[in-house]
Amino acid sequence: MMTLKRLLLVSNSTLHGGGYLEHCQDQIQKFLGEQVKRVLFIPYALHDRDEYAKTARQKFESLGYALDSIHEAADPVDAVLKSEAIFIGGGNTFRLLKALYDNNLIPVIRKKVVEDGIPYIGSSAGTNIATISICTTNDMPIVYPPSLQALGLVPFNINPHYLDPDVNSKHMGETREQRIRQYHEELDTPPVLALREGCMLLVEGDKATLLGVTKARLFLRGKSPTEHEPEQDFSFLLNQ
Amino acid sequence: MMTLKRLLLVSNSTLHGGGYLEHCQDQIQKFLGEQVKRVLFIPYALHDRDEYAKTARQKFESLGYALDSIHEAADPVDAVLKSEAIFIGGGNTFRLLKALYDNNLIPVIRKKVVEDGIPYIGSSAGTNIATISICTTNDMPIVYPPSLQALGLVPFNINPHYLDPDVNSKHMGETREQRIRQYHEELDTPPVLALREGCMLLVEGDKATLLGVTKARLFLRGKSPTEHEPEQDFSFLLNQ
Ligand SMILES: [Ca+2]
Ligand SMILES: [Ca+2]
Repeated sequence: MMTLKRLLLVSNSTLHGGGYLEHCQDQIQKFLGEQVKRVLFIPYALHDRDEYAKTARQKFESLGYALDSIHEAADPVDAVLKSEAIFIGGGNTFRLLKALYDNNLIPVIRKKVVEDGIPYIGSSAGTNIATISICTTNDMPIVYPPSLQALGLVPFNINPHYLDPDVNSKHMGETREQRIRQYHEELDTPPVLALREGCMLLVEGDKATLLGVTKARLFLRGKSPTEHEPEQDFSFLLNQ
Repeated sequence: MMTLKRLLLVSNSTLHGGGYLEHCQDQIQKFLGEQVKRVLFIPYALHDRDEYAKTARQKFESLGYALDSIHEAADPVDAVLKSEAIFIGGGNTFRLLKALYDNNLIPVIRKKVVEDGIPYIGSSAGTNIATISICTTNDMPIVYPPSLQALGLVPFNINPHYLDPDVNSKHMGETREQRIRQYHEELDTPPVLALREGCMLLVEGDKATLLGVTKARLFLRGKSPTEHEPEQDFSFLLNQ
């Protein structure tokens, strides 16, 4: 039987004025459906894993799903191998990636998602980590992972929490767009899909769709960036 | 003869409304003095090195100094060994650090500055790179350097372009302060001196002083951050 890769890659965990995962809870419920009973949570991006698991558990239980946090499992690899669905939350992307490598989780998560077709939900750093690399994270390199290569569940980069330039700002640090352009000055760099807070990318097999309430900005190396409305079909990004 | 380590670590190359290095040109002139005739420029943080060298040369010539760009030298290591003064400009810190490693420049720059006492000027990424590591850069990891360890000319971290939280913002990405706190959640992390645009740190031997027109914010692991006015003596940071 052919399995389909299934991903829900959310820009941000919390939208201004709302609660944790509130702005994407309908999409999460629809995505996981009624077959999934338990979600495996990976809290590595934040320092306080107990507290983080508590927050995530509360939310997923309210949506009708049990949640196991991988940091409470005796064997993290085994926990992934037995999982029905995976959710990786936000925080610091370098810390998250290093912990995934340290626990030998990169190949098993890939196997479960790509070969077995279990649903993967990422938010913020958990979205960065699902892509080809963490080269377009907004986070500080607080630790040194053995590589910038990430799970590679999609063959492009995402910039979560994408921020438009503030025209009134007197700050002279690079804008987000300038930073992404610097990435594309490097050779052979893949597309960067910039997800503003409030939107997310749904991948079902070879189909990718923008969901949510904000627009996305797409950066292709050597081209001008383009704006895309919710419901935009981004399937072409899956075939690089 | 005892040599003194001499550093001028500037937060930002351009201050809103001013020209390139205009806000720190008096400090640069005073710092280099009249003995220095030529400055060696390291443009590795930006992609277009020719253009960058042109901009830097124009400015340094207007201040009375000749400028050689290391990317035009046949042997970069030799260029450093023969240099009277070094200026490393801003751009992407990961790109800069990787290029310094690729060209085997880390030990020779250290030798020239620490042992021979030639003046070192850094701006933005060039300031990050002068510290113990690039762990508190604001830049995206567009390339993978062999380590996050930098020149180690000072035993702490700097965050250039430090930005206060925007109280009116609806953006939910981490504030700069939250990012620095995440760094300090990691074990044995050194102080982070956050330099707002408009200020710089002058190091003369065992004395460090804040210069410029804006305040700095100091983050020590496990403590509340503190605010410091220009002329603040930061010599204690040199003895970690
Ligand atoms: Ca983050
Ligand atoms: Ca920069």
